[in-house]
Amino acid sequence: MTSNLNSDIEPIAWVNGRIRLLDQTRLPHSVNWVEIDNWRDAADAIKTMIVRGAPAIGCTAALGLALAGRSAIAPGREAFLDKLQIAADGLCNARPTAVNLSWAVNRLMCLARTLPEVTEIKQLLIDEALRMLNEDIQINRTMGQYGAALLPDSCRVITHCNAGALATAGYGTALGVIRAAVESGKNVTVFADETRPRLQGMKLTAWELMESGIPVTVITDNMSAALMNTSVIDCVIVGADRIAANGDTANKIGTYGLAVIARHHNVPFYVAAPVSTFDFNLATGAAIPIEQRDPAEVTHLDDIALGPSNLTAWNPAFDVTPAELVTAIITERGVLKPPFSTSIANLQNENQ
Amino acid sequence: MTSNLNSDIEPIAWVNGRIRLLDQTRLPHSVNWVEIDNWRDAADAIKTMIVRGAPAIGCTAALGLALAGRSAIAPGREAFLDKLQIAADGLCNARPTAVNLSWAVNRLMCLARTLPEVTEIKQLLIDEALRMLNEDIQINRTMGQYGAALLPDSCRVITHCNAGALATAGYGTALGVIRAAVESGKNVTVFADETRPRLQGMKLTAWELMESGIPVTVITDNMSAALMNTSVIDCVIVGADRIAANGDTANKIGTYGLAVIARHHNVPFYVAAPVSTFDFNLATGAAIPIEQRDPAEVTHLDDIALGPSNLTAWNPAFDVTPAELVTAIITERGVLKPPFSTSIANLQNENQ
Repeated sequence: MTSNLNSDIEPIAWVNGRIRLLDQTRLPHSVNWVEIDNWRDAADAIKTMIVRGAPAIGCTAALGLALAGRSAIAPGREAFLDKLQIAADGLCNARPTAVNLSWAVNRLMCLARTLPEVTEIKQLLIDEALRMLNEDIQINRTMGQYGAALLPDSCRVITHCNAGALATAGYGTALGVIRAAVESGKNVTVFADETRPRLQGMKLTAWELMESGIPVTVITDNMSAALMNTSVIDCVIVGADRIAANGDTANKIGTYGLAVIARHHNVPFYVAAPVSTFDFNLATGAAIPIEQRDPAEVTHLDDIALGPSNLTAWNPAFDVTPAELVTAIITERGVLKPPFSTSIANLQNENQ
Repeated sequence: MTSNLNSDIEPIAWVNGRIRLLDQTRLPHSVNWVEIDNWRDAADAIKTMIVRGAPAIGCTAALGLALAGRSAIAPGREAFLDKLQIAADGLCNARPTAVNLSWAVNRLMCLARTLPEVTEIKQLLIDEALRMLNEDIQINRTMGQYGAALLPDSCRVITHCNAGALATAGYGTALGVIRAAVESGKNVTVFADETRPRLQGMKLTAWELMESGIPVTVITDNMSAALMNTSVIDCVIVGADRIAANGDTANKIGTYGLAVIARHHNVPFYVAAPVSTFDFNLATGAAIPIEQRDPAEVTHLDDIALGPSNLTAWNPAFDVTPAELVTAIITERGVLKPPFSTSIANLQNENQ
């Protein structure tokens, strides 16, 4: 364990009235920051995945809306709110699958509509967006405590994509559970799926864990079955982009296959996600919109063609893991167990 | 269907007394040929995967042994056979998992030992190696006929890695089944797993199918579960590197996970492999040696580091799919069905 275990990776910050984002498209080779002073650039940063991860894009959208409010010039409150709504819609539409985006934007819009004065609303948007940013880290630490209790004192864990500090305001969801376990003295070894096509596991999770001194081995996505079959894996922990009322969970493409493989090997499959990731209005995962991204993400690495030219590829960014493959969902309110329709309904009731 | 459906991709040829290999490390971007005139270079070409695929490396090793025989200078028959055995061992050790390699080399060595004269042996090695090369294509065509009968008239098939013309002397095993189905008028759409880390699906299978005018869409290895869940997939067809007496099947890493996912979705999982891929002496797949390759194949693309420096990665080249996940094994002697210990024992008895 190195001394920088608790060093804070700060993917999103509010610096001198601007959003400062760690450019995740360039990690781990270069650590670059992008400064954003208007909502359209915030939406673009979400689309192009300069910032990614459900909680992180929620926080970025909230700050983006605060920027929209600050710069909006309108003849009165209603016209101001109309302008704000355009930014809200633009931010929500940046990416369709993670519900944290619309959750964050809608929370701010609802608050905005409760205030009578434009100047008050402008200040509230900034204050509240910053509060959400700070809250997110605390939520992850609490989630980490709950989740860490599920891990054996010495364990080997598979994770997929990046549900770490980089996917949040800091600390992480799935990796937050791992951080909390390590901080509590547990001995955790992580196997990180590289996570094609964008390699978030190789580029972000491995980097983040190495920076934190947590042992990590990268595997290609197709190795998890062999790993479970030829060695001991204690559990899988992943994040989530949207969880339906029955527990069906949208997360990075490949999560569903990993859950099938975990079930086949009787390996517990945990989802770690804040309450903001639940879409209580969706009965099942069938209605979760799945973002289709440019097939060039599959066929090319940066500008390098990997296969023949004119190659056809499929590129859904997410898949849906049915609730029956999920062992437990770790939230900041505690660990939800099956039947999830009941435990999620209880969570919703507490949340109201 | 284009006019070049039946065009022969010739990955291995015997030209002017040399082995001519299509350099598969450079496909699909450049079509280059490597000429080899000694057994050590043949072994190196197998190791470095200039030629790959179980039947193809078997054929290459046979031709390599013929080259060793041709150039060997020894004071008598015994000394000649000793020299030949050194080459045989070197060729067998080039890669450990595919049994076709030792099958081919041992077949030639046994024949060599039946002849009294060195000059006769030298000629026999060449004749027999060329016969194996030609036989392999015929075997694949016969296997294709048997396998094609399993496919619906219109079907969507997932394949993994490359078990095509490029993995054999021509026509292919798994892709041979698909070719035969298409030639018989069936409408086949192929989804090719890209097959990390070396991307044989993206680089070889997609190229080969596109050259043959067979519709192909590339997916990352982690998409097969979502594909089976959100659309109709009629079957999976893969090749094999070694099949134990109980039907346990070693094949490219990722095959086992794909088989687990296919079973979860009740999708038939077919293995297509010639009789030379069976290791009748191995009771189960547990004893199949699994080649571990350089972790840099995972962490780098050519010379480009994908993740952070000093990244640890795991890189087994193969995994073992237990027989209970295999629906049928397609061979040139017909389609084997479970219980495989019986059907494979029958195959062995016929083969003796």
